[in-house]
Amino acid sequence: MIDQSTICAIATAPGSGAIAIIRLSGTEAISICESVFHSPTNKKLTEQKGNTIHFGHIVDGDELIDEVLVSVFRAPYSFTGEESIEISCHAASYIQQRILKLLIDKGARLANPGEYTQRAFLNGKMDLSQAEAVADLIASSSASAHKLAMHQMRGGFSKELGRLRDQLLHITSMVELELDFSEEDVEFADREQLMDLAVGIKELIEGLVGSFSLGNAIKNGVPVAIVGNPNVGKSTLLNALLREEKAIVSDIEGTTRDAIEDTINLKGVTFRFIDTAGIRKTEDVVENLGIERTFDKIKKATVVLLLVDAEKPVDVLNESISKLNGHIDKDNQKFIVVVNKIDKLQDGAENLIGKLNTENADLVIPISAKKHSNTERLVEELVSTVNLQQLNECDIIVTNTRHYEALCNANEAIARVINGLEMQLSGDFLSQDIREVLHYLGLITGQITTDEVLGNIFKNFCIGK
Amino acid sequence: MIDQSTICAIATAPGSGAIAIIRLSGTEAISICESVFHSPTNKKLTEQKGNTIHFGHIVDGDELIDEVLVSVFRAPYSFTGEESIEISCHAASYIQQRILKLLIDKGARLANPGEYTQRAFLNGKMDLSQAEAVADLIASSSASAHKLAMHQMRGGFSKELGRLRDQLLHITSMVELELDFSEEDVEFADREQLMDLAVGIKELIEGLVGSFSLGNAIKNGVPVAIVGNPNVGKSTLLNALLREEKAIVSDIEGTTRDAIEDTINLKGVTFRFIDTAGIRKTEDVVENLGIERTFDKIKKATVVLLLVDAEKPVDVLNESISKLNGHIDKDNQKFIVVVNKIDKLQDGAENLIGKLNTENADLVIPISAKKHSNTERLVEELVSTVNLQQLNECDIIVTNTRHYEALCNANEAIARVINGLEMQLSGDFLSQDIREVLHYLGLITGQITTDEVLGNIFKNFCIGK
Repeated sequence: MIDQSTICAIATAPGSGAIAIIRLSGTEAISICESVFHSPTNKKLTEQKGNTIHFGHIVDGDELIDEVLVSVFRAPYSFTGEESIEISCHAASYIQQRILKLLIDKGARLANPGEYTQRAFLNGKMDLSQAEAVADLIASSSASAHKLAMHQMRGGFSKELGRLRDQLLHITSMVELELDFSEEDVEFADREQLMDLAVGIKELIEGLVGSFSLGNAIKNGVPVAIVGNPNVGKSTLLNALLREEKAIVSDIEGTTRDAIEDTINLKGVTFRFIDTAGIRKTEDVVENLGIERTFDKIKKATVVLLLVDAEKPVDVLNESISKLNGHIDKDNQKFIVVVNKIDKLQDGAENLIGKLNTENADLVIPISAKKHSNTERLVEELVSTVNLQQLNECDIIVTNTRHYEALCNANEAIARVINGLEMQLSGDFLSQDIREVLHYLGLITGQITTDEVLGNIFKNFCIGK
Repeated sequence: MIDQSTICAIATAPGSGAIAIIRLSGTEAISICESVFHSPTNKKLTEQKGNTIHFGHIVDGDELIDEVLVSVFRAPYSFTGEESIEISCHAASYIQQRILKLLIDKGARLANPGEYTQRAFLNGKMDLSQAEAVADLIASSSASAHKLAMHQMRGGFSKELGRLRDQLLHITSMVELELDFSEEDVEFADREQLMDLAVGIKELIEGLVGSFSLGNAIKNGVPVAIVGNPNVGKSTLLNALLREEKAIVSDIEGTTRDAIEDTINLKGVTFRFIDTAGIRKTEDVVENLGIERTFDKIKKATVVLLLVDAEKPVDVLNESISKLNGHIDKDNQKFIVVVNKIDKLQDGAENLIGKLNTENADLVIPISAKKHSNTERLVEELVSTVNLQQLNECDIIVTNTRHYEALCNANEAIARVINGLEMQLSGDFLSQDIREVLHYLGLITGQITTDEVLGNIFKNFCIGK
């Protein structure tokens, strides 16, 4: 039941440029374009081969709207898999709107958000996780986010899921074969072999579930909570880190700075620096609220960065450090004490550091944000929190919350399978849980899907994608 | 001495879209793209015909940057007339910058502002006035501005100038023939016929010079000064006019409202509504400064719109009207008195209007901005100030200040030719002035040009055009 109507939309960004692209897709795409196209050599678009480009005019009756290039794509060799047209016109918003209106007048309709990619999915050009990767790819603003999205779009994740699925289908077919012969009480599926398979699958799913924190951090930025009193040098530090950033071209967009949250790309990884209020012990209810929020932010961070002023007395510094005791999750968070303003010290940073109670910290890094000394060390430590090795080996890393949830559900179901095997449950019970695992994995790639799921996924795309 | 180096730039607008286009132009365009392109079917771009599209990957060594479509254009069948490539990639700014950097690493250089269009000019794909029209076309935000730019881009203006040039060349060849036989004192060129030709040419040039105020108004918006006291309903009127505007699609850009100057498209024409301060008679020096500025704004307007409140006493209204006496240029400005709030009148608008001293006004229009009554009448009157008939007949209308200045200079030179003919000057004097007319007309289409002139024209283009 694929909607075969012809859709149109502007595919390029709005605003000032030299050219803009308007896309048409659907059975009538080429003939609708033909009806507003005039070639100086009287070429007919409908007679043209796929992957060819044609110069001509878009006309509204006698009125010339623009001189354009029209690209013809023939099904199934197009992005959507349908007959498609791309009109490359001058980028005036007036011209784009006129052409769009003309196409609609001639029988096309404006595409819904994400409808091009949705059609590519429905026509089997890509699976659902690949379609989702298209949106991630377009939104990617760092090398690592780009790499993950590209890998997912190219089907890396899908292949991994496909392998899991094949193994599960093997188990389930053996178990379900038993059901057919249930009166005879045979076991086609060797229970020990089944257990091995199920445990192996659980490990794989757990690995994928576990990769989400990294994937999410790469996609949305690694959250780094900065704790420190005013004047300790927070903004000087952020500016120093911004300078370490190796921007390809200076005017890359999306690196805007924000008063509360600074997003900085360091060596291809995006970090979100969250400024927390200073932490003080106080009886004041309102101030306590502030502190609660601070600890809340700390809890959500991957890295907690305590910034202290080297010029302050040692006991003041130790008090700052001790305030964070009990608020760091040692297994999942990295706690770095950054001693700033070491350029002001007479007798060296090492002497000071020796006096600090840093047994709870993973690292102590002396720096001078102002003089940019030792800040590269901090950058290296931050980047090392993201296992880029894992990324470089192109292991599968889950970045999408929808996938993460499906995998968690699959994980629970496979745990029930293992439990069932341990309890020597009969095949019909096992089969139900195995089917459930298959169901959740199928949700990710779209082998199992509903209109509602599709609607939710594609509504977050913009029109034209 | 055309620069043959290969240039590259992003041709689409920056920001969020589905796809973006990166253009390459120059002798090495195809081979540079080839060096970063990998086709799954091992196609070689360098072996492909023009106007064809090829799917593949942009790669940086082993790293996959994006899945793209590459369009190949072969000289001279491209926009610039050179070997050209268009890479259609996913619109992430990260991806665009990576591809651009790759192309630069492989030997392309970033294009200068307007360099694509400049090359199209230098390679004879269009003349200078057509190249300038490309920028106007991209910037056009109303039907009329679009029409003028399109007509100019398609060479309408160039043809008119070509006709003038041919006539002038005819005169000058006759006159210069005389110079070769100067000792024999012959007159090949019939002086009466020469005079007729020169007068005809002057009329044509004057027509073009005269069309500039219309052309400029269409291109930059017709300036309408609104004079009126506070609370007379200025913003209600502007909102009512905005509602009259028939936008094609509601979110057309460029119709942003501004506190001081409102730009509104009415029936395909852009109007700039300039709010002037109220005019009062005062001895206060500072207030007088404000008034001076008001009269200055009025002077620059094509339409002066005095907005008065129908509820005020007749003598107050007449005082407002009389204040503008002597400040309106009756020949070149339209003075409209708009009587607002007529819905509040008990005994009808006609009765009130009969009592107003409106002999200096071109028109009196009673309206109610709030109730939207009679505002269409005002719209019609505003639109009628622009001679759209002239526009519809596709007469040549000069929109470009550079062309206007060249035409003014040509006009002075042709006046000297006429003067010389009247004073029966010899052929060598006449010839010099005729050559000057040819020079100024040649400047417009670029038959005569300098690097400086070209630099000035194209620097105002954005990179990628």
